[in-house]
Amino acid sequence: MKVSIIGTTGYGGAELLRILHQHPEFQIQSIHSSKLEVPISEEYPHLYGVIDKELQKIDPDKIASESDIVFFATPSGISAKLTGEFINKNIRIIDLSGDLRLPAEQYNEWYKKEPADPQIKEKAVYGLTEWNREAIINAELIANPGCYPTSALLGLAPVVKAGLIDPSSIVVDAKSGVSGAGRSLARTSSFSEANENFRAYKINQHQHTPEIEQQLLQWNKDIEPITFTTHLLPITRGIMTTSYVKLNGKHTTSELLELYKETYSRNPFVRVRPENSYPSVKEVAGSNYCDIGLHADPRTGRLTIISVIDNLMKGAAGQAVQNANIMCGLEEETGLNFVPMYP
Amino acid sequence: MKVSIIGTTGYGGAELLRILHQHPEFQIQSIHSSKLEVPISEEYPHLYGVIDKELQKIDPDKIASESDIVFFATPSGISAKLTGEFINKNIRIIDLSGDLRLPAEQYNEWYKKEPADPQIKEKAVYGLTEWNREAIINAELIANPGCYPTSALLGLAPVVKAGLIDPSSIVVDAKSGVSGAGRSLARTSSFSEANENFRAYKINQHQHTPEIEQQLLQWNKDIEPITFTTHLLPITRGIMTTSYVKLNGKHTTSELLELYKETYSRNPFVRVRPENSYPSVKEVAGSNYCDIGLHADPRTGRLTIISVIDNLMKGAAGQAVQNANIMCGLEEETGLNFVPMYP
Amino acid sequence: MKVSIIGTTGYGGAELLRILHQHPEFQIQSIHSSKLEVPISEEYPHLYGVIDKELQKIDPDKIASESDIVFFATPSGISAKLTGEFINKNIRIIDLSGDLRLPAEQYNEWYKKEPADPQIKEKAVYGLTEWNREAIINAELIANPGCYPTSALLGLAPVVKAGLIDPSSIVVDAKSGVSGAGRSLARTSSFSEANENFRAYKINQHQHTPEIEQQLLQWNKDIEPITFTTHLLPITRGIMTTSYVKLNGKHTTSELLELYKETYSRNPFVRVRPENSYPSVKEVAGSNYCDIGLHADPRTGRLTIISVIDNLMKGAAGQAVQNANIMCGLEEETGLNFVPMYP
Amino acid sequence: MKVSIIGTTGYGGAELLRILHQHPEFQIQSIHSSKLEVPISEEYPHLYGVIDKELQKIDPDKIASESDIVFFATPSGISAKLTGEFINKNIRIIDLSGDLRLPAEQYNEWYKKEPADPQIKEKAVYGLTEWNREAIINAELIANPGCYPTSALLGLAPVVKAGLIDPSSIVVDAKSGVSGAGRSLARTSSFSEANENFRAYKINQHQHTPEIEQQLLQWNKDIEPITFTTHLLPITRGIMTTSYVKLNGKHTTSELLELYKETYSRNPFVRVRPENSYPSVKEVAGSNYCDIGLHADPRTGRLTIISVIDNLMKGAAGQAVQNANIMCGLEEETGLNFVPMYP
Repeated sequence: MKVSIIGTTGYGGAELLRILHQHPEFQIQSIHSSKLEVPISEEYPHLYGVIDKELQKIDPDKIASESDIVFFATPSGISAKLTGEFINKNIRIIDLSGDLRLPAEQYNEWYKKEPADPQIKEKAVYGLTEWNREAIINAELIANPGCYPTSALLGLAPVVKAGLIDPSSIVVDAKSGVSGAGRSLARTSSFSEANENFRAYKINQHQHTPEIEQQLLQWNKDIEPITFTTHLLPITRGIMTTSYVKLNGKHTTSELLELYKETYSRNPFVRVRPENSYPSVKEVAGSNYCDIGLHADPRTGRLTIISVIDNLMKGAAGQAVQNANIMCGLEEETGLNFVPMYP
Repeated sequence: MKVSIIGTTGYGGAELLRILHQHPEFQIQSIHSSKLEVPISEEYPHLYGVIDKELQKIDPDKIASESDIVFFATPSGISAKLTGEFINKNIRIIDLSGDLRLPAEQYNEWYKKEPADPQIKEKAVYGLTEWNREAIINAELIANPGCYPTSALLGLAPVVKAGLIDPSSIVVDAKSGVSGAGRSLARTSSFSEANENFRAYKINQHQHTPEIEQQLLQWNKDIEPITFTTHLLPITRGIMTTSYVKLNGKHTTSELLELYKETYSRNPFVRVRPENSYPSVKEVAGSNYCDIGLHADPRTGRLTIISVIDNLMKGAAGQAVQNANIMCGLEEETGLNFVPMYP
Repeated sequence: MKVSIIGTTGYGGAELLRILHQHPEFQIQSIHSSKLEVPISEEYPHLYGVIDKELQKIDPDKIASESDIVFFATPSGISAKLTGEFINKNIRIIDLSGDLRLPAEQYNEWYKKEPADPQIKEKAVYGLTEWNREAIINAELIANPGCYPTSALLGLAPVVKAGLIDPSSIVVDAKSGVSGAGRSLARTSSFSEANENFRAYKINQHQHTPEIEQQLLQWNKDIEPITFTTHLLPITRGIMTTSYVKLNGKHTTSELLELYKETYSRNPFVRVRPENSYPSVKEVAGSNYCDIGLHADPRTGRLTIISVIDNLMKGAAGQAVQNANIMCGLEEETGLNFVPMYP
Repeated sequence: MKVSIIGTTGYGGAELLRILHQHPEFQIQSIHSSKLEVPISEEYPHLYGVIDKELQKIDPDKIASESDIVFFATPSGISAKLTGEFINKNIRIIDLSGDLRLPAEQYNEWYKKEPADPQIKEKAVYGLTEWNREAIINAELIANPGCYPTSALLGLAPVVKAGLIDPSSIVVDAKSGVSGAGRSLARTSSFSEANENFRAYKINQHQHTPEIEQQLLQWNKDIEPITFTTHLLPITRGIMTTSYVKLNGKHTTSELLELYKETYSRNPFVRVRPENSYPSVKEVAGSNYCDIGLHADPRTGRLTIISVIDNLMKGAAGQAVQNANIMCGLEEETGLNFVPMYP
């Protein structure tokens, strides 16, 4: 199976290369960038002698004729314009950007950019693998979930679906490593200002808010707007989402853990931790796991949900390959059995 | 004015030395430790040539006869036993540990240690400076607040006191640097396991929970138990507390910022940020400031409060000296005008 | 091929598990520790659901009868005593500790510990793979090189062997991440004291000094004692060794790079960088590569050699598996094709 | 005494503000920038409520008429052009950039920029305080030393001046925190690429090389070109310079430490450490100290010199204020008694 990557020089692209180089069934056919025509190892010396392919201009016809799958690892605003040129050309498309996840109006409101053609958007299947496998199998086009939504949704799903919570009570306090901001230069992601620091940003205004709410509403139509805060951690990789919900009735931690274990029992990349064990972000670093820990507090009637992922893996490239595996009829773990790198 | 420190080799003690060495009115009389009788610069080489005093055994009578003020920067469980020996000896006592902040039963429940004699505890004035100046002026004994409670309480106080929030809605999501765990060695505070990591701990079980609730109840007797999560940041110093409350009515961010500015107008160490500006932990590093930012979300009716401090300064040694200044009739900023160290 | 690990709870052991779990030819038979009899995932939650084997006591006969290869990932002083019990039992032994690398007297002088039985030591083949393949193929017992020696020796070998340098001129300035100090707790490897810090330690007294000199002398009998400084970097993984040598004659960087490329042409894990490109430690993180960059300065006649490795991979577990592959007649890259994790 | 700062928005400027705000004799008159006319606290929120002065355009006549001292904290290439407009206007000038440290030809060769008017350059006194006090007292214009040269020169001076070393043997292996690269954005100083990383750069080509050699030659005219490597540490502040020299005769560490202590006995900001104690960079963080440790190795006849500074303090703003104090007849410690911030 031949795959191409558009937007290879960002961190999502680099992580796709790390995965795909070791993938037993996929072969990297070509890598593309709008800017550079140099060997990728000039941009990323860690690939020197490993992947020395040259970055190529983006030629949709050529790519579609030579590859079976194309990954868009582009900044927002690019695939909204470009995916149309790959549709109906017998190529599977996986878009890691946020361009195809929201209805046009919402996209415009939260991303402040021109939305994709609604006909294209309509074809896009939301690629939250654990909850959408059936649709992914037959999809031509995948809107791969955002990093924050992946961790928040996997953590909230079981209690939201089961109707165990007050639908107006959801507070999501999320913390991400700096690589989530991408590779373009910015003051807040410079070392001297991010290091030994911790900051909140886009409070109640992050573009992942409607993406989370849209999926929650599919699980439970009574869900009200959520409170969502994003923070910047002084680490490179990893997201922890601490979610708070009010439980409808009395439920013990152990009872809820059973529900979670049951729910995710056939999902190889979700690890529900035992009682009194809470995952830390480093415990999933470099892997495709989402680890979840729970604590229900009898004093307050609230449930605290801790979910962690590597934002570049399960939050981006890892989940993209997981979806590609499913689209191609492979086992979903294929090429993704990375043991977390610890310490 | 002569001051002594008991428990000098921990980080709180070291920070007291940094402040007191530069303080224009206080003079370090003696420093004490239960273990070592060596120059402090052997334990802390950064003090070499600056403070070369020798650590001494703890002799209450001698200390009380030679000093005007004594700071306890000891681990929990020590000052519960020791402060009694300093009472009624014409010496002011400031206890940085948690031993004198809670009623005996609660202390025992949350700290799992033997509480102080209730008569001693009764003399202790809670040293949250901004809200307790009157009592501090005449106190003989100060229970200096915990680091998490300081940041949470300063952030919550104005809306809680004003009765603007649903008293059952408080969720406090707190993140602290590793120095908050003290200087004793532990796996979770070793570099290889804390670095590039982020973990939640003591979920709903942190010993600072009752300390926060006790003070909130003094401001508003309807406050219900809070949800409180603590996380370990891969930084040395700094706490950010992100607090969530449900507003009773409609209030804009700008209106609430006015309330906060008004409330803290005569408090030199609380900086209320302008709208759309949220403090980061590094912006108070090394200083005694508590910076606060707010966002009221019309979509949800919730207020998000960001408050940051340096846990070793406003969260420990800085606030202790601020209280000592007040007890001695000095301006409360005396010796505390540290500009944050940035970057 | 069945493998066992003794000393599994240290970082070297954890890294062996990460590699071996994904190795296509080796199967983890049993894991051992002197202390604990619990599932390894209690000690290392990142392995939860991946490797749930229980740690076992060390029973040499049982291990030798069930496994084909045993790795010692123990602190110094252990394998000196234990390896004897595995000799002549038809099991291949790879010792990651420093116990079998030096003659008895030198070991005692630099390690301050009881040396191994000289007969055992004599059987041990020094496992610097790139330079000792012939001997490794038939070895029963491998003394796997130290992390600093691996990076220093691979960087120095070509010019030392070729006799291009003044044999009295070698200065090795090495910098290592904190994981190199192992998992036992220590003040200097606590987060608050290692973070935002950089320190030199064991100046001219590091136990890897004689290991480096011993190998250099095999390549060039005129080599004189080296100057060797080790420093602690505030990172978890990675070593950079900056070595300085005086060139005998005039040699350009480009000429020397040719020599290095030629020397390492059939060595898949040594990447010699192009002129003006110098490797950084993150560019090999998580991989088995040793990357080398050179600069010959016409102003001074000195050559500066930069060599980087991941101390837990090429500096420990990776090289150990590379040696195990060779001992078993496998391609040496088997199970080791990790792409560096960047960023 | 009134002082102004030109180039206030860089890290050197921010550090000058931190020092000057607390300085008992200097008062900040005005702050200048080529770009912005906003309150400095918009650019640096840590100064909110502390220094709210507005950034002003650079008007040399106005500045010279209102201030007694002006600091240039500008990137290289600016003060070469601007200082001329302040000469002969009865204002003392301290230039933190590299523009006035080298003869025109060398400046052009190493900085690749237009040098200053040689007549201006001639007036500039090199501000390595500990070695140039006499000239500084009467100077109109100070070329404040670079960060690397400050740490390297203070470490090498005693043995170089005393003629105890082989003049062709100097190797300087230097490591700096990221703030040394300034505040402008760059890939290598972005968090995701500098964090958990360590890289060498400008090997044998750093522009501080001729600055170091020029001063060494003033102490000892036989000194030959040095080998100089600079590395980027994943910390914000701090430089460690590890220097290697061949001793002419046999000298013990203790003997050499005596020489150093004697040499620096009346220098309050140089701390020579006791035998077997080596300074780490965090032990001087936020302070104006340069700490030095030594080890003479009888095996090799080489001396290893460890010297550490905070690059923004003794390596920039701290030394600048130290020089300003001397120029104004104040005690050189005035306003500089910062205790290192540890941990």
